[in-house]
This record gives sequence, structure tokens and C-alpha cells, in this order.
Amino acid sequence: MADPAAPVRQLRGKPLTDFLKRVQRADVDLVFVLQDMQDPVNVGSAFRIADACGVRRMILTGITTCPPHALIKKVGRGRERRVPWEYTQDAAEAVESLRRDGYRVTAVEITAAALPYDAASYGERVALVVGHEDHGVTNRTLAACDQTVFLPMHGKGASLNVHVGLGIVAYHVLSAAGRLP
Amino acid sequence: MADPAAPVRQLRGKPLTDFLKRVQRADVDLVFVLQDMQDPVNVGSAFRIADACGVRRMILTGITTCPPHALIKKVGRGRERRVPWEYTQDAAEAVESLRRDGYRVTAVEITAAALPYDAASYGERVALVVGHEDHGVTNRTLAACDQTVFLPMHGKGASLNVHVGLGIVAYHVLSAAGRLP
Repeated sequence: MADPAAPVRQLRGKPLTDFLKRVQRADVDLVFVLQDMQDPVNVGSAFRIADACGVRRMILTGITTCPPHALIKKVGRGRERRVPWEYTQDAAEAVESLRRDGYRVTAVEITAAALPYDAASYGERVALVVGHEDHGVTNRTLAACDQTVFLPMHGKGASLNVHVGLGIVAYHVLSAAGRLP
Repeated sequence: MADPAAPVRQLRGKPLTDFLKRVQRADVDLVFVLQDMQDPVNVGSAFRIADACGVRRMILTGITTCPPHALIKKVGRGRERRVPWEYTQDAAEAVESLRRDGYRVTAVEITAAALPYDAASYGERVALVVGHEDHGVTNRTLAACDQTVFLPMHGKGASLNVHVGLGIVAYHVLSAAGRLP
């Protein structure tokens, strides 16, 4: 796919659009659940990441800040109008409904039973749950999920920003789905 | 490592610290280069990601906003005091210096020769270069790098926020280094 003889220059405009179309991969049936994501900057970023990952649906629950919101629009580059989303009050109910629809539901949170995110199996229909900026995914929501994964931390901090963690896990899911066996 | 019998509850406080220590992996010699990253929110987030990834050194170049800065401190959770960093005016010179020190230098940018980020080899000593929020990594910097990688985009947008892209590539590098052959 890469052309080693090509000049090392940024692509812009139509060559960029053409390039991105050419390298799109097989679809993964991917859903995001935002449980109590209060900060509209995180919600906007989640929409931008969701668009980049080809997410089918976002479910916003609890006290998650919903569109329309000026910061969601700004940070999300208007992607909240592209990615289908809905609001459900109760995150555990949203998770149970996804499981009834055949999704394997994975929460990104640190629990004693959590697997490293890159050692887990996400299934064919993948739902990822992330939580509140300070309080994470609640124990009630965790109890409804199929599994929990975490991101190893190599420094002094105990966490990444929630939208960064979501992006890392979501891209890993896409990468693992596209990897040759 | 995961204990399937453990209750699915968040870890907090000392159990969390103990858990994170237990799951830290082998060190990767990883360096970030921020070329002209103007927005202090992105710089702060890059510091937080750098700490999470155990980055050895960050090199801030050109018009990158440097610490001390209130927003870098807030978004970075003070990690700019943990992660060693330095300022170099010229990004291409910083890249050449890293290459002389044995680093394989990878720019995150879309060029005709770019590889999917999860299909590239990053070497033993890994340097990742990211660029300006709007203008990306300059052609002059790209010409100094060993290779360029990109993140596949599955939606309508052509890019992710630069700190999100950096987090995804950096965690992929750590994951690939820790993966069993």
C-alpha cells in the first residue's frame, strides 16, 4: 500500500481524501457507551473518535452532557451530527439491552478482575463503556458488563484522560479485528 | 493475572496503586517530539500520556507551548514536572540528533508513503514525532524522519486530535513490544 518511492510530503485536499478511502478497513460493529461523562470537551472528543472509528451508535447515559452543546460541537468538529446517538438514563439498563442484542460489553475501568486491554477478546459485536471523569464506571454498571479492561500505567499517574483511554482501546479493537490470524 | 473470582468493583487508593505496580511491563525506550504543538491543552495531555507510557524524554520544538503554563499543568496533572523535557528550536535538528543516538524516528502524519501505524516497525529505541494542530508535521521535519505512519479513518473526518493520535500510537508501540512472539 505504501509507496517507498513517493516523496515524503503531507497529503492535503483530494489526494488526502482518496488516500483515506483507499485504506479504510473492514467494518467492526462498534458501539460506545458514555456513562456520566460530564465534561463536554470529553464528549466532543468521544464523538470525533467515534466518527474516526466508524462507530455505529453512541449511548449517552446519566449525567453525560448531550448535544447540542457549543463545546461538544467545537471539540467534536460537528461529528455529533454524523454519529447516531441516543440518551438512556440508566447505564446498566443500556448495557443489558446491548447484551440482549448480542454485544459483548467491555468496561474500561480498573478492577481486581480487569484484563490488560490488549489481552482481552472483544467479540464480534463490540460495546465499550467509559465512565465519569473522576468517578469512573460505577460498580452497578460494571456488574452488568461482560468484562473489564485496563490500560497499563508506566508512570506516576493512575489514569489517562477518559477520551484518550477510549481512543486507545477502540483503535486496538479495530487493529486486532484487521490483523491477520 | 486477572482473578475471575474477584468482585467486579473499582479499585481505589492503595489497592489501585498496588495493582498498577504489579501490571507494569518491560520498559521501552520511548521519546516524544512535539513539533509546533501550539495548544497548551494538547501539550498538557501529551505530558500526561508521556507519564502513562513511561516516556524517557520529551522534546518540544518550534512554537510548541512550553511549561510553565497554567493549562499544561491543569490538563497534564502536573506531569510536566515528572517527565524530563527540553526545548530545541529546530525539529529537523532534534530528529537528526535522535537518529545519531540510535533512535528510529517515526512521524505521525499522512503522506503517500505512510504505513498504517499498526503495520510499522518502531525499532528498539523509539521516537514519535507529532506536529501542529492544523499544519501537522512539516515536510522539512518529515524528510529527516525514518518513516511515517498514519491512523486509518473510518468516518468522515480526516484526522483525530493530535494528542489522541499520539496516545494511540504510543500505546500500540508498548503493546507490540510486550506481545509474545
